[in-house]
Amino acid sequence: MIGMDEIRRAVERIEPYAHRTPVLTCRGLDRMAGCRLFFKCENFQKVGAFKFRGACNAVFSLGEDEIKNGVATHSSGNHAAALALAASLRNAKAYIVMPDNSPEVKKAAVAGYGAEITWCRPTLQAREDGLAEVIARTGAAVIHPYNDPGIIAGQGTAALELLEEVPDLDVILVPVGGGGLSSGTCLAANGVPVIGAEPQGADDAYRSLQAGKIIPSVNPDTIADGLLTSLGELTFAVLSKHMKKIITVDDPSIISAMRHVWERMKMIIEPSSAVPVAAVLQNKNEFSNQHVGVIISGGNVELSGLPFAR
Amino acid sequence: MIGMDEIRRAVERIEPYAHRTPVLTCRGLDRMAGCRLFFKCENFQKVGAFKFRGACNAVFSLGEDEIKNGVATHSSGNHAAALALAASLRNAKAYIVMPDNSPEVKKAAVAGYGAEITWCRPTLQAREDGLAEVIARTGAAVIHPYNDPGIIAGQGTAALELLEEVPDLDVILVPVGGGGLSSGTCLAANGVPVIGAEPQGADDAYRSLQAGKIIPSVNPDTIADGLLTSLGELTFAVLSKHMKKIITVDDPSIISAMRHVWERMKMIIEPSSAVPVAAVLQNKNEFSNQHVGVIISGGNVELSGLPFAR
Repeated sequence: MIGMDEIRRAVERIEPYAHRTPVLTCRGLDRMAGCRLFFKCENFQKVGAFKFRGACNAVFSLGEDEIKNGVATHSSGNHAAALALAASLRNAKAYIVMPDNSPEVKKAAVAGYGAEITWCRPTLQAREDGLAEVIARTGAAVIHPYNDPGIIAGQGTAALELLEEVPDLDVILVPVGGGGLSSGTCLAANGVPVIGAEPQGADDAYRSLQAGKIIPSVNPDTIADGLLTSLGELTFAVLSKHMKKIITVDDPSIISAMRHVWERMKMIIEPSSAVPVAAVLQNKNEFSNQHVGVIISGGNVELSGLPFAR
Repeated sequence: MIGMDEIRRAVERIEPYAHRTPVLTCRGLDRMAGCRLFFKCENFQKVGAFKFRGACNAVFSLGEDEIKNGVATHSSGNHAAALALAASLRNAKAYIVMPDNSPEVKKAAVAGYGAEITWCRPTLQAREDGLAEVIARTGAAVIHPYNDPGIIAGQGTAALELLEEVPDLDVILVPVGGGGLSSGTCLAANGVPVIGAEPQGADDAYRSLQAGKIIPSVNPDTIADGLLTSLGELTFAVLSKHMKKIITVDDPSIISAMRHVWERMKMIIEPSSAVPVAAVLQNKNEFSNQHVGVIISGGNVELSGLPFAR
């Protein structure tokens, strides 16, 4: 199992490469929420998301022998860019299997970091087949986006840094997608309760923790496009054991929370990052006067398609 | 005249109230610009702009006797909110003369800080008449938005903090409106050259420095709505003596630079803040491989009217 030692080692491992992101506060949002909010700003992380922490830790954890044929994954999003950058920093080859309908900006980012991209159709089957073909051909080491101890330990470094800076938190809120960030946060929290936040339209983790078994999302539908994936075996086990509970919120409250953060804090967060903010704003009694840590997961938003009504 | 001592005293005076804003960097923008950029992020300052530094310093510089009848100004924008907040922190009354066509969000902010607002028609004459009436009635101390030594010293604290954090800057770029921020930056720069950046559609400072006398803007027209005002006697004197030069940029390059910062740095800057960024991107040879400080003046943007084409 992953313990605090692994997360501390991850902090040292990624320190030369990752940003130590700032913890920001905002009096206006505090008043709105009725508590004190401490935002750990992974939107300012390399590649614009916490994903770089895990990818960097995983890549630099590999022995020379394990990485000599490069690393590989399938991803349409931030994990692809994060792995491509991390591999380039270790002068290793990255092979990314990407659905051919991935956003242009993501394709360009991955290619810009020097990764070799294999295109596939946008189905899970095609992605897995594509990855199997790449591994057979190259012998690259697979780095799963979340169901991987090195990834989880890396993602946990954000909460560890947050707690170093603000030791007296009463609770930490974190968005839940595949569970890499939320698992790492639970393991780094050192006794501080961790509450997950999920969109109602992709509440597989909420239902899985209720049922005591993994219930994958079927046709998830939410603006929080970073939280569509379902838990893996490893992240389900960690969350089952360590997460206090999960709060779900609807898309209008996510968009509203996102706009409040943009307007009040002058920082760009993606819809997935607004999910825990919405969870606080929708449950003010629960957090009244507490010191609430919020992991802001990323800031990758297409500016030409903003959800703010004119 | 205002010297480094006044700026150091301003740092101590505002420290309990103002944010020490972060200095952020971005590899992607560095590559784009061909130099190393260090952004002093006053968009994260209280009220969303550097203006709070000057207002706070001016308000807390006043003796008990000088402030007992409150403070007053006319402003449609950030100075009004900054002065209102600073006065409230000193438990003093703030009287703000605001044009009745000011943006709703600005009106709400000023009222929210407990200021007494006097509405006037949106002309300079009506604003000055309104202010004269308020002063006659209340005996409040007038705090000019930029042509005031306390304001200038306060605005200079941003550059002082930037240089404390990054001592080896080759140059500092700063937007020029009425000249409060740019004058303070010149006086705090301690030998580091300061270059102003102005929109072509509001280039009164550029023309004034060329002519050796104040040439006010007539019908300025630019998206950088924080830079419409013309220099005052005091700021003109400081810039004439201390500013290396002024670079002007057109509105399309301002919008483009603003978008690059939003996309790459995940932070919201207003068009006025993008003016010095555009100045660097439009003059790459001049800044090649240098360490360039950029004062990001603010982040107050109406999200419903963004200039990014769909």
